[in-house]
Amino acid sequence: MIMKKCYFDHVATNPLHPDVLESMMPYFTEEFGNPLSVYEYGIKAKDAIEAAREKVAALVHAKPAEIIYTSSGAEANNFALRGMALARQNEGKHILVSRMEHHSILNAARFLEKSDFTVTYLPVDKSGFVDPDTVKKMITKETTLISVTHASSEVGTIEQIKEIVKVAKEHNIIVHTDAVATTGNIPVDVQDLGVDLLSMAAHQFYGPKGAGALYVKQGTRIVPLIYGGIQESGRRAGTENVPAIVGMGKAAELAKAEMQKRMEYLRPLRDKIIDTMANVERVYLTGDRTARLPGHASFCVEYIEGEAMLLLLAAKGIFSASGSACSSKALKASPVLLSMGIPSGLAQGSIVFSLGMDNTPEDVDYLSNEFPAVIRRLREISPYAQGWGDREEGGSCTVKK
Amino acid sequence: MIMKKCYFDHVATNPLHPDVLESMMPYFTEEFGNPLSVYEYGIKAKDAIEAAREKVAALVHAKPAEIIYTSSGAEANNFALRGMALARQNEGKHILVSRMEHHSILNAARFLEKSDFTVTYLPVDKSGFVDPDTVKKMITKETTLISVTHASSEVGTIEQIKEIVKVAKEHNIIVHTDAVATTGNIPVDVQDLGVDLLSMAAHQFYGPKGAGALYVKQGTRIVPLIYGGIQESGRRAGTENVPAIVGMGKAAELAKAEMQKRMEYLRPLRDKIIDTMANVERVYLTGDRTARLPGHASFCVEYIEGEAMLLLLAAKGIFSASGSACSSKALKASPVLLSMGIPSGLAQGSIVFSLGMDNTPEDVDYLSNEFPAVIRRLREISPYAQGWGDREEGGSCTVKK
Repeated sequence: MIMKKCYFDHVATNPLHPDVLESMMPYFTEEFGNPLSVYEYGIKAKDAIEAAREKVAALVHAKPAEIIYTSSGAEANNFALRGMALARQNEGKHILVSRMEHHSILNAARFLEKSDFTVTYLPVDKSGFVDPDTVKKMITKETTLISVTHASSEVGTIEQIKEIVKVAKEHNIIVHTDAVATTGNIPVDVQDLGVDLLSMAAHQFYGPKGAGALYVKQGTRIVPLIYGGIQESGRRAGTENVPAIVGMGKAAELAKAEMQKRMEYLRPLRDKIIDTMANVERVYLTGDRTARLPGHASFCVEYIEGEAMLLLLAAKGIFSASGSACSSKALKASPVLLSMGIPSGLAQGSIVFSLGMDNTPEDVDYLSNEFPAVIRRLREISPYAQGWGDREEGGSCTVKK
Repeated sequence: MIMKKCYFDHVATNPLHPDVLESMMPYFTEEFGNPLSVYEYGIKAKDAIEAAREKVAALVHAKPAEIIYTSSGAEANNFALRGMALARQNEGKHILVSRMEHHSILNAARFLEKSDFTVTYLPVDKSGFVDPDTVKKMITKETTLISVTHASSEVGTIEQIKEIVKVAKEHNIIVHTDAVATTGNIPVDVQDLGVDLLSMAAHQFYGPKGAGALYVKQGTRIVPLIYGGIQESGRRAGTENVPAIVGMGKAAELAKAEMQKRMEYLRPLRDKIIDTMANVERVYLTGDRTARLPGHASFCVEYIEGEAMLLLLAAKGIFSASGSACSSKALKASPVLLSMGIPSGLAQGSIVFSLGMDNTPEDVDYLSNEFPAVIRRLREISPYAQGWGDREEGGSCTVKK
């Protein structure tokens, strides 16, 4: 018997689009040159990464010169936070970072705290929203930078970046958004958002691993994270990963062309999962119901540990995550979920299904049958599940029944 | 007529070994998982990068746990210099860096100077050697770190790292070596060298771009450059570039197995070029004649600019570099050549031929015919070449005739 395999962890990483892989192949073989070389191999490699830059820029409505390639979204986030904090340190040493951020922002912020910067962590409401009014209250004369994720890959909530930018711009503060989960998946327009810095990662939209980028608004000075040669106008050194960059360009082009179609395909599948789970007792949707990533369905399941669900689902060929990929092996309750007011016991029962274009409606039907069965089975053996009613509801989550 | 193409710029980058590309392919398609995921796609990806780690470790005689993947040699160099300077800042804030270093070391050192560290730049002799006795003299009580390249990609000189380590260890100083040009090309043994940190890049030994590593000796604390998730034991965040890492492992395995054969193939080809050029007037070998990279032939040609030679050679299908790839477009005389006492006028006439396994003896014959002809032609039109004898010899270079 061949087991069904349903990959529902597209926020962790994605399979390459076949056209993306095809676009990359020549740059592994005949076109292997170093973009800095002055002869034809170099010129072709340079042309290829510049053509890709145009496509990446077009995806987010930026100018090509505003795109700096990195090796990952994490590098882009570290570059943004540390590079901008240092670039503006003479104007102030206070930074605002939301509690919804990915570890690459939170841990870079902690590094800055050790380097004599002050970081204030913006609280969020129970849907995971950062309130622009709260941002306003927390701004000081020393504040130079605000970093708020465009959408959390853990709970799918899409933040009101545009409103936060409005507040920031009244105080001449730079705004960075971690758009790793959104770029290529929903419309991301740097001009409409008004941000100064925006991080993205190609493998989040069917591009390759090893390719990310930081949008840096024209005229914005930033201190490099990786020093060296004159690559990326001296702002990010290291021999360019030409095949991966070319793949990122192709993935960006495809994402732009197919975005509407992809969103329309994913939303009903996501909604099917959410609607099914609404009928299962003590399962709570995390994140906002409406302003959420098109393929993202995340829950907290009471009385069960996320890890146990993952393993039982995996045994049925259903692959999902508990919190972010980067933290799922850390075995701690997710700081993002805790910041939303979810009790730590309930946060341990976190599970995320993130859909992609390789998922079929049949995959979703399979999940909709199997997941409630897995929950039932685990509750039968859970010591915590015996005394239902003696404990408080996990009522701080957004969706109740 | 099909033009002959001879790629003599293997220090800039290398074509992938076909077996390396083959090893990478499954990780672009069916095995696309994120190594942090707990289900089978993740486990296979994790197993793949750990298997690669064993091969990379074996290439340099390290333990697998001592290898931290990076996206490039430049990242490894920045990580080493900045990460170690910060990790030991309570013990001292003085660093020694040689003048032979790549831009990624020199510019990271400049960043540290701006961050309240003192950097002393170690002079070199006319062959490009750092003298261990000079190192000894420049050590202060504040010195915590010494960084000397294993070999310069510009002049090919292999440094006496082992002797430098001996001096450093008398003073409890950490030693880093940038082994990007040597790893995979000549024997590199971290235990024999005695270094604490060593940088490498896969594309320097027929592996992919986008994959590098830093060897960090067991028990050595280092501050991360890229913060985030728990990848690389929390020392380097970002979703791992699985295909590139797998390719680096395969390239390391091949390099270890074939190293002797490769060196024996390249050395006579290199020597043929050096011997031919010894017969051309006012062409000087740069770097040491004996302790040099097996495929590396570098010269300064009097009265001619490197750029002009590159272009004329390229028109004949001969692809080479003037100085390091990262600086060749910067249009400045190479700091490495100047540090060796080469006059700046002569340093402008720098050219590097770096050989690889794709070069044939016929390629070298072709170069040996064409290069002297290019020099003759350029000198016919050079205003500087008229008054030969009125000027000093470029006699500070190593090889005279």
